[in-house]
Amino acid sequence: MNAQPTVKPYVIGLDLGGTNSVFGIVDSRGEIKATTAIKTQGFDKVEDYVDAAVTALSPIIEEVGGIDNIKAMGIGAPNGNYYKGTIEFAPNLSWGHDGIVPLADMFSERLGIPVALTNDANAAAIGEMAYGVARGMKNFIVLTLGTGVGSGIVINGQLVYGHDGFAGELGHVIMRREGGRSCGCGRKGCLEAYCSATGVARSAREFLETSDEPSLLREMNADDITSLDVSIAASKGDKLALRVYEFTGKMLGEACADFAAFSSPEAFIFFGGLTKAGDLIMDPIKKSYDECVLPIFRNKAKFLISGLDGSSAAVLGASAIGWEI
Amino acid sequence: MNAQPTVKPYVIGLDLGGTNSVFGIVDSRGEIKATTAIKTQGFDKVEDYVDAAVTALSPIIEEVGGIDNIKAMGIGAPNGNYYKGTIEFAPNLSWGHDGIVPLADMFSERLGIPVALTNDANAAAIGEMAYGVARGMKNFIVLTLGTGVGSGIVINGQLVYGHDGFAGELGHVIMRREGGRSCGCGRKGCLEAYCSATGVARSAREFLETSDEPSLLREMNADDITSLDVSIAASKGDKLALRVYEFTGKMLGEACADFAAFSSPEAFIFFGGLTKAGDLIMDPIKKSYDECVLPIFRNKAKFLISGLDGSSAAVLGASAIGWEI
Repeated sequence: MNAQPTVKPYVIGLDLGGTNSVFGIVDSRGEIKATTAIKTQGFDKVEDYVDAAVTALSPIIEEVGGIDNIKAMGIGAPNGNYYKGTIEFAPNLSWGHDGIVPLADMFSERLGIPVALTNDANAAAIGEMAYGVARGMKNFIVLTLGTGVGSGIVINGQLVYGHDGFAGELGHVIMRREGGRSCGCGRKGCLEAYCSATGVARSAREFLETSDEPSLLREMNADDITSLDVSIAASKGDKLALRVYEFTGKMLGEACADFAAFSSPEAFIFFGGLTKAGDLIMDPIKKSYDECVLPIFRNKAKFLISGLDGSSAAVLGASAIGWEI
Repeated sequence: MNAQPTVKPYVIGLDLGGTNSVFGIVDSRGEIKATTAIKTQGFDKVEDYVDAAVTALSPIIEEVGGIDNIKAMGIGAPNGNYYKGTIEFAPNLSWGHDGIVPLADMFSERLGIPVALTNDANAAAIGEMAYGVARGMKNFIVLTLGTGVGSGIVINGQLVYGHDGFAGELGHVIMRREGGRSCGCGRKGCLEAYCSATGVARSAREFLETSDEPSLLREMNADDITSLDVSIAASKGDKLALRVYEFTGKMLGEACADFAAFSSPEAFIFFGGLTKAGDLIMDPIKKSYDECVLPIFRNKAKFLISGLDGSSAAVLGASAIGWEI
């Protein structure tokens, strides 16, 4: 009688955000079988955070038949270093802002399974490849348009980590070399300063200040305007809000044209809050890309919106790293 | 008695240029054992070109003990498509300007060995990895500064060809979005329009026109100035010529800072005519890179000049593709 090969059908995903840590146990089709969450903050020491996490995980691991059914764990976290499995100087984490935290090793020791860790944009890219619109693709770029602009780059079927584990910072290519907007990174003119959710709100404020054009957004206190307000105004046909999306999309298209000259991907995949604007943002991106890109790349790349379900996308992305170990 | 495994010790390299086609038979250490050449032009049909090439190769193949000693052939050619082994619409080739030429297959059929083909900048990158300063590196970018600006990108130890085989056109990222110089590609503001040999000569002419600064270059007819003249003047301490190198290096450093945000390479390797200026060009590149790059990448990347011998670099690069098959 031959022993059956043991196939472990699940991976754990951890979306480690600044406020909440969401865990999911996921199968190979991207179905979330069980989920739980803890607060990320409120722990002085990383040991206490890991204790709380393992306590919360325990019952959902039992739900799927115990740890023997789980292949690995993947973590998507800010300032995550894939090569080392560490979180490095993450400004928003009470237990991780002043040093290098070997979080992957700590979870691996407690759970007895392999654990890998990367930043959230890389996790999104692996998630698209495992369960989303990039299934079967070997060359694509995910751009996450949220509070910041992040990216995960896949080339020859592999995520690009670079020499030091920090490659794929496409939110910080310079789009305006003269008189560019200040960016959170301390430099000027970065893509992120224009095309993140905060960048979109900033564009709206600039457009309001520099014109007399009527706009629904004038009914608000300028400082309170968010990208969601711009999106709502645009969906009502507000011309100034529509111009904000055209401006944002045009710059994203210009940036993608440069990225094509680098890795000539099959697709650009957009992820995060701003994509909820749908064609309002995607149409200007595609138009600008076709106008700007080197002729040899014209009409080749696809422009897609993430195929991962919004509320669980980050957990799915993180879990997908588990399949790669 | 066991049969010895047959190790084929040589590869053929073909540097297919607009004027000459240079062949070399190369060993695994990058030593050229035999060499020959034919004119690239003067053939109406590609069949005639391949005939002439095979006739020229025949005696040097015999010199190294016959075709059984040769593992493969690598070709570095303009508009080369690695995936298909074709040269596509190469404007400067009499037998290749109006269609798709399956050159790799044609040589493979005639010689009875595997043949691969790519563009010359990609060949240079593989050459650096096989015999040059990138030995042992898995993540680096080669920038060729010649008549144009080309690039070969290596990530995770593999050359980046992208979805269509044409990735790595870093000479055509946009460095000036407003009022940029016209580029040969039909667009404006490309890196190549500033940092190629012709771009350097153009900068010198612009600097002469827009200032009264004395310069050795004023003794020449402005239209006749080449990058070599700028280099000679700079090496004599000519201030205007030195400013041209500072301007060129500054822009290359800015471009490399954006490339670091993409693939975070271990090294940038510079290849081609402009590198003969040595520190005159390398110092401003490094200074500008350190000023411009995202803090997380600062002081990490090396800046190197090609380790391949100038006169045979292109043949060595082409031959190195043969080892990769």
